[in-house]
Amino acid sequence: MNKYIKENEQRFIEELLDLLKIPSVSTDKKFKPDVLKAADFLKEKLEKAGADKVEICPTEGNPIVYGEKLIDKNLPTVLVYGHYDVQPADPIELWKSPPFQPEIRDGKIYARGACDDKGQMYMHVKAFETMMETGNLTCNVKFMLEGEEEIGSEHLVDFVKENKEKIAADVILISDTGMISNEIPSITVGLRGLSYLEVEVTGPNRDLHSGLYGGAVPNPLNILAEMIAALKDEYQCINIPGFYEDVEDLSREDRKAMAQAPFSLEDFKKEIGLKDVEGEVNYSTLERVSIRPTLDVNGIWGGYMEEGAKTVIPSKAYAKISMRLVPHQSSEKITQLFTDYFTQIAPKSVSVKVTPHHGGEPVVIPTDSVAYLAASQAYEDTFKRKPVPMRGGGSIPIVAMFKDELGLDSIMMGFGLDSDAIHSPNEHFGIFNYMKGIETIPLFYKYYAEMTKKAKS
Amino acid sequence: MNKYIKENEQRFIEELLDLLKIPSVSTDKKFKPDVLKAADFLKEKLEKAGADKVEICPTEGNPIVYGEKLIDKNLPTVLVYGHYDVQPADPIELWKSPPFQPEIRDGKIYARGACDDKGQMYMHVKAFETMMETGNLTCNVKFMLEGEEEIGSEHLVDFVKENKEKIAADVILISDTGMISNEIPSITVGLRGLSYLEVEVTGPNRDLHSGLYGGAVPNPLNILAEMIAALKDEYQCINIPGFYEDVEDLSREDRKAMAQAPFSLEDFKKEIGLKDVEGEVNYSTLERVSIRPTLDVNGIWGGYMEEGAKTVIPSKAYAKISMRLVPHQSSEKITQLFTDYFTQIAPKSVSVKVTPHHGGEPVVIPTDSVAYLAASQAYEDTFKRKPVPMRGGGSIPIVAMFKDELGLDSIMMGFGLDSDAIHSPNEHFGIFNYMKGIETIPLFYKYYAEMTKKAKS
Repeated sequence: MNKYIKENEQRFIEELLDLLKIPSVSTDKKFKPDVLKAADFLKEKLEKAGADKVEICPTEGNPIVYGEKLIDKNLPTVLVYGHYDVQPADPIELWKSPPFQPEIRDGKIYARGACDDKGQMYMHVKAFETMMETGNLTCNVKFMLEGEEEIGSEHLVDFVKENKEKIAADVILISDTGMISNEIPSITVGLRGLSYLEVEVTGPNRDLHSGLYGGAVPNPLNILAEMIAALKDEYQCINIPGFYEDVEDLSREDRKAMAQAPFSLEDFKKEIGLKDVEGEVNYSTLERVSIRPTLDVNGIWGGYMEEGAKTVIPSKAYAKISMRLVPHQSSEKITQLFTDYFTQIAPKSVSVKVTPHHGGEPVVIPTDSVAYLAASQAYEDTFKRKPVPMRGGGSIPIVAMFKDELGLDSIMMGFGLDSDAIHSPNEHFGIFNYMKGIETIPLFYKYYAEMTKKAKS
Repeated sequence: MNKYIKENEQRFIEELLDLLKIPSVSTDKKFKPDVLKAADFLKEKLEKAGADKVEICPTEGNPIVYGEKLIDKNLPTVLVYGHYDVQPADPIELWKSPPFQPEIRDGKIYARGACDDKGQMYMHVKAFETMMETGNLTCNVKFMLEGEEEIGSEHLVDFVKENKEKIAADVILISDTGMISNEIPSITVGLRGLSYLEVEVTGPNRDLHSGLYGGAVPNPLNILAEMIAALKDEYQCINIPGFYEDVEDLSREDRKAMAQAPFSLEDFKKEIGLKDVEGEVNYSTLERVSIRPTLDVNGIWGGYMEEGAKTVIPSKAYAKISMRLVPHQSSEKITQLFTDYFTQIAPKSVSVKVTPHHGGEPVVIPTDSVAYLAASQAYEDTFKRKPVPMRGGGSIPIVAMFKDELGLDSIMMGFGLDSDAIHSPNEHFGIFNYMKGIETIPLFYKYYAEMTKKAKS
């Protein structure tokens, strides 16, 4: 297969660049035509690669692209999940090249979605093509590619519930996470969950002149700032009553094992230009981004934001606030606890509205399953090093949903890097990583088929 | 004169509407041509009304419109100050009629600048016309109309310094404040000063994914909120060391006298839709907006502010923060104290940039001067009620500057109302108020000339 991959490398890259040119941003409805265009693109490429029954399944939101190749009902079935929607590109002025005009610099493809998740998802399409063209497909395979991951996968849930037979499989395969470095591969075996809320604080019924009213009326900007400050204490612990109730304390041994993972605090700081890290007291940086829950303001706005000075006391202030959750915490419960607390700490001079956005449950994946071991062996073959099982800090809410609805674990074979700037300006994906993914994925199929057969016999 | 005013009322209103159609917003450079258009408009109208030596005096910023009518060097000279620039109109979607397409509803003119200050400034042009046309001009008069009041009057300062002889006068007359109600006239005898700063908090050198980094890196949005919260204590006192050092405590008698001013807390709350007022402990609402200094966030922004959810930890967070100052506080000193404190309370994981915008010094005007007494008598004639001397909460920085540079007090004959929504959507100015101003101003000239003559003899 490696010969086929080498010979087609240029075309594999060019096809990805074509996909990246489509601004399939799902958070903003004005990009809907592009979202549909990206779905069409994938339908065509799956058909070309040899998939059967390829269809664009409409939902009440963005469609799901489905395709399959069932070769033998005695062989295990792999359900590939990925998403073709991307995050918004703003702030656009910080991009060195336009976010939807992909550019290759220093062996990396720069574009919105280059890594998350168009690049990592498209590796699977090209790995499938490779297996088909070289006669190496060793498992049945189904593709389920959605267009709403960045906005909470709302309609994927319905699709999964309504199509359990169609998408029945033995394991789910996802590339939407990262690895430690190009030298040290890793497989994500834990994901944080997410609660995401938008808050609105209203003081006076209209914008006021701060000279005439300042000092005597509730300023929603000051009050929102004070309420946000009240969400954490001086030790950076979250003040919401009950927030830590379901958080599992890792044993000393587990924490010790984690501390062995290769990690340089200096490199971490340097790479993102930090003078210092900060976070919950008594936990290391690696722990803070993986086994501990967090609370971050993701956006805040209100009042006068243009050039110059305007002495206004605005009527309203807004913020988007999200919390990353760890295993056993429930997104729904935390969303409710946040709402109760945030409403309760508001001074009676203002009114507060809390609107939940999408959430997701935290998950842990076993490392002793056939699927995990097959993935581990595949990485070992291509990287010449056993991958490290890692808990990731990010959230892929659908992983918990797949477990609940289908009873299936997901194998998260990520090939991206933390430095890929996903969700940021200048998102990129190394050509090394893209090609390594296309090379490694078929080996997962190979070992998964072999090990399943062995386990059965 | 009243006959002339009545006969020309319709034209006086129409001319003001024409002026209001020009979006002479000074905070945003893209409106520069409109700013110049407004200056041209005033030049033409002053000339038509009979002023001599009318000119548009260029500055490094927006020009100053100057004109004069010197009738007798033995008569006192009144220097009329006003400004033809306006605040930005945003949020534009909250205007019932477009901000620069003036509309009369319920006897009020709705437009940006209707009151602040085009409406109030243009009363003087029409009062001057009336005195000229009816042979009633009793003082020498000079007009100095600027286009940068809303951005700090930076170049007016230079103009005043360089043209002391040209603008020499006995008193300055300004209509850029309000009165208590249409039944209870008042004259502003105190103004708060202003310090206005913009702050920028930088955490990581780029926007980060909150899943990968959340919990371990300084989030500038959370930190800015915490820093803002740290600016006030639980009693709504300002925490900046030294902030209250120069604040004069009013005597019990003075506070008692203030408490006699007609004021309904219920009406105040109802008019701006407040559930409750709030402010510095131990002070009344009227005190909080006049004799006490304040700190308000006027704008805040950072991170993801669009529709939907984005799990980003932004690199930067911003706020605009202003403080209203009372007599004896110095704008420069407070700006420095704020900067020192704000920098000092920043956690070492972030960097902070503080940029001062314009400031202004607080002032107090004596109530026993000839000019004050003349103004008081003029209001008494037209309102059939003696005006109440009031300390205003707003800032007109140039009033302190005029005192410093020219040694002149300003008489602040305001005809607007607090409910005129200046600096807000749906700014308006009552036709009653506009016409009452045109009627009252000539009486000031009459009494000022008479009383000056009497005082001299």
